[in-house]
Amino acid sequence: MAKRFFTSYTDGDIILIQDEEYHHLVNVMRAQIGEQITVCFNDGYDNLCEIISLGKNLATLKIMSRQKNNAEADIDVTLFQAVPKGDKLDLIVQKSTELGVKKIVPFLSKFTQTKAISVKSDRLKKVATEAAKQCGRAVVPEIEEVKTFSEVLKTLDEYDYILMPYELEKTREIKTALIKANKPTSIAIIIGSEGGFCIDEIEQAKQCGADIVSLGNRILRAETAAISVMSIVIYQFEQMKTGV
Amino acid sequence: MAKRFFTSYTDGDIILIQDEEYHHLVNVMRAQIGEQITVCFNDGYDNLCEIISLGKNLATLKIMSRQKNNAEADIDVTLFQAVPKGDKLDLIVQKSTELGVKKIVPFLSKFTQTKAISVKSDRLKKVATEAAKQCGRAVVPEIEEVKTFSEVLKTLDEYDYILMPYELEKTREIKTALIKANKPTSIAIIIGSEGGFCIDEIEQAKQCGADIVSLGNRILRAETAAISVMSIVIYQFEQMKTGV
Repeated sequence: MAKRFFTSYTDGDIILIQDEEYHHLVNVMRAQIGEQITVCFNDGYDNLCEIISLGKNLATLKIMSRQKNNAEADIDVTLFQAVPKGDKLDLIVQKSTELGVKKIVPFLSKFTQTKAISVKSDRLKKVATEAAKQCGRAVVPEIEEVKTFSEVLKTLDEYDYILMPYELEKTREIKTALIKANKPTSIAIIIGSEGGFCIDEIEQAKQCGADIVSLGNRILRAETAAISVMSIVIYQFEQMKTGV
Repeated sequence: MAKRFFTSYTDGDIILIQDEEYHHLVNVMRAQIGEQITVCFNDGYDNLCEIISLGKNLATLKIMSRQKNNAEADIDVTLFQAVPKGDKLDLIVQKSTELGVKKIVPFLSKFTQTKAISVKSDRLKKVATEAAKQCGRAVVPEIEEVKTFSEVLKTLDEYDYILMPYELEKTREIKTALIKANKPTSIAIIIGSEGGFCIDEIEQAKQCGADIVSLGNRILRAETAAISVMSIVIYQFEQMKTGV
């Protein structure tokens, strides 16, 4: 499989690769003129391109062929993630990108112990781009700026189904909930940070239609819950299917 | 919930806590005489204990009450993991412990780039113990010494069902496979390292009854595959159910 690069720079029929992607192409991969790579414009298509020139800061390429990339999930999953401590958000962004997430929205909840300023969305976008390249996607998930929990609530009506695991929910099991949800087209997953959610937040989310579920008797860390629920939702609804 | 400690030291009715667990109890938690903690003997029971003395290197406790812990999955899942690079095995051990794994067997396959000597099983046992404490289990998953792939194959007949994701499998989807597997009592999950498996290894595993499946069109990193498949197996068969 040809190596994968993302760019938004084109000049007519000519594709330009610059900045970090240029560095990766020329200094890391040591690509040569005539070599073929896959270039993505974040539109769901793979463009097989040939390198026609290599400048000091810029590579130019021409498209040889173009085909639809089949790595996008056929359901839109948005992960609303209360910001966890340390670099755990990096891990969550990386893994949920591999698993097929479409959008990630970091937010602050009552028990979040991290400040908005410590969330580096440029860095998260880079993590998402690297993960998309590695797993063979032609779309990098959107990473939104940090929101408040109230802002998150206001956007929930865009989704067919809203799934929200809660540590103190003791009866509604996730499997029962997902089977009843049938097959939604767009799903919001809302995951807490280390502190979890306060009961007011759960009530507010319920008012917005969130399905509050248990993840069972073992208490999952914030990042484990995110990766695990993302896996389960993709398994349940997209079936991790193969082919086009 | 009372804090959770593991020990295998008892002297008649007296429970002893020493070594690292003592350090955690006394120096980190700053526990006092009369305080109550949960002590586990790795037998699936929680023992509510009261601290009766605190020495320089040893705490003694007495059992106040004892009850079955409900955090163990009702299926036995063993994760056979080809050793990945760097500290990714730590992450896999931590996350699969939270998700309910019973045993983890690191092994070397043809494309594994890590040497057996770099797998520190003492360190992995510590990671598993910490994860078990954190997620509320009363059993620490067993961590075996590094095996060869041939040794792994010889143990597979112990399992009702053997699941083996393979990057080049393009037709058999994991969901189809798991639905057909009905509800096995013991499951082996075999996950490759960065290099994946060679076709000979896949053929040998097939001979031993392994169900070779695809994880879909996105190529998951080794550690993502492990955490994701562990989540899916627990979801499918244990249902992440609540209660006792």
